[in-house]
Amino acid sequence: MSPEPRLVEVRKNILKQNDIVARELRAGFREVGTFVVSLVSSPGAGKTAFLERVLTALHPRYRVAALVGDLATENDAARLARSNAPVKQITTGTLCHLEATMVRSAMEGWGAEALDFLFIENVGNLVCPASYDLGESLRLVIISVTEGEDKPLKYPPIFNSADIAIVTKIDLAAAVEFDRAAVDANIQAVRPGMTIFHLSAKTGEGMREFIESLEARLAASRGVVVG
Amino acid sequence: MSPEPRLVEVRKNILKQNDIVARELRAGFREVGTFVVSLVSSPGAGKTAFLERVLTALHPRYRVAALVGDLATENDAARLARSNAPVKQITTGTLCHLEATMVRSAMEGWGAEALDFLFIENVGNLVCPASYDLGESLRLVIISVTEGEDKPLKYPPIFNSADIAIVTKIDLAAAVEFDRAAVDANIQAVRPGMTIFHLSAKTGEGMREFIESLEARLAASRGVVVG
Repeated sequence: MSPEPRLVEVRKNILKQNDIVARELRAGFREVGTFVVSLVSSPGAGKTAFLERVLTALHPRYRVAALVGDLATENDAARLARSNAPVKQITTGTLCHLEATMVRSAMEGWGAEALDFLFIENVGNLVCPASYDLGESLRLVIISVTEGEDKPLKYPPIFNSADIAIVTKIDLAAAVEFDRAAVDANIQAVRPGMTIFHLSAKTGEGMREFIESLEARLAASRGVVVG
Repeated sequence: MSPEPRLVEVRKNILKQNDIVARELRAGFREVGTFVVSLVSSPGAGKTAFLERVLTALHPRYRVAALVGDLATENDAARLARSNAPVKQITTGTLCHLEATMVRSAMEGWGAEALDFLFIENVGNLVCPASYDLGESLRLVIISVTEGEDKPLKYPPIFNSADIAIVTKIDLAAAVEFDRAAVDANIQAVRPGMTIFHLSAKTGEGMREFIESLEARLAASRGVVVG
């Protein structure tokens, strides 16, 4: 007997359980007015450098915090703490993604309630996180110019699960002969109409436009019209 | 009742089943004298560019072929076919790793038996492939200089499952201020004594040393002493 059907069945139940917890999280965040942004990408695409810039830009004016997932080490939490925003590391052991229960456990007793923005940096992985709702308001999929233009075509589920695509490390675009039109076309082929930001956390290019779009989304989620 | 223990149990059975198939594959490859090399890395680390160089270098003098895994697209097989070596794509759908049965199915009726070298390029993922033996003789874990020096510490299982570490894209080392001593120290911290090659598939730097080491390993696997 092939074991696959049993695995699929058990996994479906776990996913369903994850969806229930994610729905509760989402309702809770909405109640207190917290806009939750999750980040998924390959290892080394630059999630942490990007997030450090975002936290630093938002921190003076908003109540922000971040959860950050990794198999091992607290390196990312230490890096993000330089933004002075509250940061908590979730280590997953051998698990290739975060789950809603991990977010719930991390939030419990943390004292980081009543936030404007909560950021959740997932484990570096372009496959596994696609199936797990974390109760976020917005999911960003991040790819760096050094990874090549074909990644959307090769990893369609993660692009389909995300709301916005961020193309990072554009300061390296010339060095790797990056074809911007090609990556944009590949993203649109997988997810027509997807919003795309091209930016560099190193030079800061494109960061302001992204930060402003986040602020507009927070305002919109609270029913505030930005003029 | 928490569903996790059931998943773990089912997964253990699948892994055991995978190990049985991998053992059979390994015995079969050894019998016909095929040296099997698998490649694991993040998406975009440069597995395919590296493998194209390796196939092109070996093809005139050895019988070589490659299997290449991806969620979707046949792009990599098309790229690797430029080496003129036989190449076959395995598409995994939403699965984040190759399994031994996929290798077995791909080999059946392919007519690529009696090879000197078979290369297996796994799905781009630094987590999932760690647990799946594919019957290979040698596993390479590849990281690019653009991913940062901390990856071995953050993804220890994949480094522990591999035999050799390849640091790619060293032509970009200066542009990303890559610290070679730091990545080497991090690899050694996770897997003491691991052999490391630093190279660039783009410029060819470091490729010759790697190719020679492969040839020496093939000879050693056949009991030939290289003088």
